[in-house]
Amino acid sequence: MAEGPTIEAIREARRRIAPSIHHTPVFESASLNRSTGARLFFKCENLQRTGSFKIRGATNAIFSLPAEVAARGVVTHSSGNHGAAVAYAARQRGIPAWVVVPRDAAEVKRAAIADFGAEVLLCEPTLASREAAAREVIERTGATLIHPYDDDRIIAGQATAAAELIEDAGGLDLVLAPVSGGGLLAGTAIAAQSLEPRIRVVGCEPARADDAWRSLRSGKLERNERSDTIADGLRATLSERTFGILRERVEAIVRIEEEEILEAMRLVGERLKLVIEPSAAVAAAGALLGKLDVANERVGIVLSGGNLDLRRFFPSP
Amino acid sequence: MAEGPTIEAIREARRRIAPSIHHTPVFESASLNRSTGARLFFKCENLQRTGSFKIRGATNAIFSLPAEVAARGVVTHSSGNHGAAVAYAARQRGIPAWVVVPRDAAEVKRAAIADFGAEVLLCEPTLASREAAAREVIERTGATLIHPYDDDRIIAGQATAAAELIEDAGGLDLVLAPVSGGGLLAGTAIAAQSLEPRIRVVGCEPARADDAWRSLRSGKLERNERSDTIADGLRATLSERTFGILRERVEAIVRIEEEEILEAMRLVGERLKLVIEPSAAVAAAGALLGKLDVANERVGIVLSGGNLDLRRFFPSP
Repeated sequence: MAEGPTIEAIREARRRIAPSIHHTPVFESASLNRSTGARLFFKCENLQRTGSFKIRGATNAIFSLPAEVAARGVVTHSSGNHGAAVAYAARQRGIPAWVVVPRDAAEVKRAAIADFGAEVLLCEPTLASREAAAREVIERTGATLIHPYDDDRIIAGQATAAAELIEDAGGLDLVLAPVSGGGLLAGTAIAAQSLEPRIRVVGCEPARADDAWRSLRSGKLERNERSDTIADGLRATLSERTFGILRERVEAIVRIEEEEILEAMRLVGERLKLVIEPSAAVAAAGALLGKLDVANERVGIVLSGGNLDLRRFFPSP
Repeated sequence: MAEGPTIEAIREARRRIAPSIHHTPVFESASLNRSTGARLFFKCENLQRTGSFKIRGATNAIFSLPAEVAARGVVTHSSGNHGAAVAYAARQRGIPAWVVVPRDAAEVKRAAIADFGAEVLLCEPTLASREAAAREVIERTGATLIHPYDDDRIIAGQATAAAELIEDAGGLDLVLAPVSGGGLLAGTAIAAQSLEPRIRVVGCEPARADDAWRSLRSGKLERNERSDTIADGLRATLSERTFGILRERVEAIVRIEEEEILEAMRLVGERLKLVIEPSAAVAAAGALLGKLDVANERVGIVLSGGNLDLRRFFPSP
């Protein structure tokens, strides 16, 4: 039987990370409520420090380390939001951080990680090269690996977003979160069902990287054949740990097409006036585009992040 | 000597409109503070009801009408945010509203006005046709004209945004607002200088519709030769009333180029995660792009609205 962090570990994570993170607001839109027939509560992790929920797990993991372990620093491999979150949280704790980034990652992401004070280590864009680079740092420095999702401290940290959402919305029937490696969705499910057992939790996943949807159907961990979705934060695959939790606690996974991701970004931009990244739009699409029957339900949606390069969308005239 | 509404009229407007509008939040960005060397306080009128500050003036004007006058309804000519605001405020008061809209206005704007319950009257896209259509309604129904800016009740209503901003930010050196017909900027200047006389107020205007900049230089009301700026909310020109107030109270007008408007939209989107319309980006550009020396200053910026058609920016893949 899968376990994952307990609700007590999630409560401890809330206390631990409270001084370092924003308690983000919950937004509503009268017009989106009207058009869906639901009450939709959008948890604005795009407004979180570093621009995504990832700072919750990273801060919980890094601030959990005993002082003498922390002093040797932390390492991770991620060119995205988790890399920036580890860099930020390590600086908050005053310890060194190394972030392994593939050579082909966007320069802007590399710069963000360096801006937060981490040492960026370039590697080849393969899993083997990334893992080797991280291992080399660990052997050389004694740094601790902060995995993006396969870690109960990370899952407990990510769970705190849903815990805040459920409290602030005051009663929900359904919570939607995006799924990639499964840390956010697993934490969301544990938090929701521990706080209000009747809440249903549904994951939203790009159809182009639907390993979670296939894994829950087949009953075993599936891989992605392709990972070219615009939702660049959702290209990872479940681990045994997150798969075990999702299998037990998640009602369903809905798959979102590429054009639906863009449509949800537009709707959230036009109605809520919020910039969200495509990964967050995957969760919003689950509620906004008729993918699920949400009529008359109180639905929480974790808008997981807001980091994207708008030069792509707002070209110069 | 120009007068405009008093600070007491602005205080009264706050009380009058409080039940109908949002007290919008003030956002900050650590990275924008770092990059400008200032403390920037963004007043989020993009998150206001109807998506812009215009609801403040419209609500103040419409709720100021004596009952028997109000009962005959209100009329305005505007295809943009003021039209939607008048429609919304009239519905709140339970009275009829007619909004004259040029035939060539975007269908989405027309639909928004009709959604708020107003009767949309189409006219030719000329000032003469618009005014004739409004006059016809007034003669037929006895409705009251709600002018978008040439009205002290409107100016007092728009002033309430700056009043909230100054209170919430806790002390400012400089306030920036966009200028078109001048209602928002005039109200901002009166509110700011009545509440904290040392605050400087600067208007921001598209270089392509710079009548306010030219009027303040020449000392007489100037017209715009062209009005093809992307900032579609800033194409109107000052009235004698607003010009008089600005001449007395505004330190300067800065002109913003089209590419700077887009750059400011991008920066606000990427750093604050907020969707703002080009007119609001004009004010943001004043602080963000080195147009003014803001180093070490506490600067309030009125993000006037967030209504735009994102299909233009987020095309389908």
